[in-house]
Amino acid sequence: MKTRDRILQASLALFNSEGEAQVSTVDIAAVLGISPGNLYYHFKGKEAIIESMFDEFETELRQVLSAPIEKPLSLEDNWIFIYIIFEEINDFRFFYEGMSSILERCPSLRPRVARLLALKKATTLAILNSLEKQRLVSFIADEKDRLADRIAAHLTFWLQYRAITEKEQTDRARIHDGVYSTVLQIAPYVVAGRADYLEGAAAYFARQGAGKRR
Amino acid sequence: MKTRDRILQASLALFNSEGEAQVSTVDIAAVLGISPGNLYYHFKGKEAIIESMFDEFETELRQVLSAPIEKPLSLEDNWIFIYIIFEEINDFRFFYEGMSSILERCPSLRPRVARLLALKKATTLAILNSLEKQRLVSFIADEKDRLADRIAAHLTFWLQYRAITEKEQTDRARIHDGVYSTVLQIAPYVVAGRADYLEGAAAYFARQGAGKRR
Repeated sequence: MKTRDRILQASLALFNSEGEAQVSTVDIAAVLGISPGNLYYHFKGKEAIIESMFDEFETELRQVLSAPIEKPLSLEDNWIFIYIIFEEINDFRFFYEGMSSILERCPSLRPRVARLLALKKATTLAILNSLEKQRLVSFIADEKDRLADRIAAHLTFWLQYRAITEKEQTDRARIHDGVYSTVLQIAPYVVAGRADYLEGAAAYFARQGAGKRR
Repeated sequence: MKTRDRILQASLALFNSEGEAQVSTVDIAAVLGISPGNLYYHFKGKEAIIESMFDEFETELRQVLSAPIEKPLSLEDNWIFIYIIFEEINDFRFFYEGMSSILERCPSLRPRVARLLALKKATTLAILNSLEKQRLVSFIADEKDRLADRIAAHLTFWLQYRAITEKEQTDRARIHDGVYSTVLQIAPYVVAGRADYLEGAAAYFARQGAGKRR
């Protein structure tokens, strides 16, 4: 692997486990066994590393969010799709947990984060529209638009909420917890079989979620 | 007014309008027409100002969240109560919009923020319990607990979401928007008259919210 890629990989692991604010470029160089000068040759500081990581994250998340939505959006399809989104976000966790701090230091990322948020909302709306068209869920007034806003916000800030309220979650538990909480926002709009829908979601959560450790 | 209080007042106004990261203690002194040395005599830096502000904010928000909940929790009571919470949060907006950055610099606030979050959830649960007891809303499985989590997170992160998606809201519009979005989370659990409940909420929103400027 190229030094540049090794730096990105080691930085991401350190940022996610220690919190980005706690990690210096000297720490990163030390973990890799390279000199700070060598690291500096590749990246002129932590912000350059973060921006480079964001490029990749943005590409991947855009791909996920823009994936064609399958027609029969069963609970299972929903669960898996939201799972993949949360998995991407969890891989880039340090960014979500320290968002305001990082955006202050990397202001060029701000409009890109805003566009990702808009895309999260648009994708959520597309899913809700599909569910509505199949008469699986029903909305009145502007419930649908507001729900899409809340889910977009939820996808973006849930990890920060959990970082404050429950620090010791494993990756797997954290992802499942986020997905479960998303699915439960859709449940009350389910036209028939809300109890089944919830039971199904709880079963997913119990089977793959909180219990097991990675 | 004492110099100390004038410093706090001017800082809060500057932080909220410019963003805390953009404001230095020199800026604050300049606005007040005092010397940086005089400011330093009262506060040994921005973090000391923020911590002092947090003391007051915490006291006020605790009072609001611990207020005895009236028995007949009508939509109107709900609206007003959530309005008051959002008003408090909006007064302290810079903190919510820059939370991760500020908590990095003021780590002593972290457990206090966690306790406020727990209190937000507990208050929300108390309201939902009261509504449920009156058979106004109904929940199955762990919907109630998860809704309380989501509302606690919503109260905490909605301003950050809006700061990214819609910068130009007035204070009044921002508060009403946050309240409306909260009330709409409760609406789908309303047992009978969900349409009326939503219509009422929309009417509040239209009358007092987005349209008018403070």
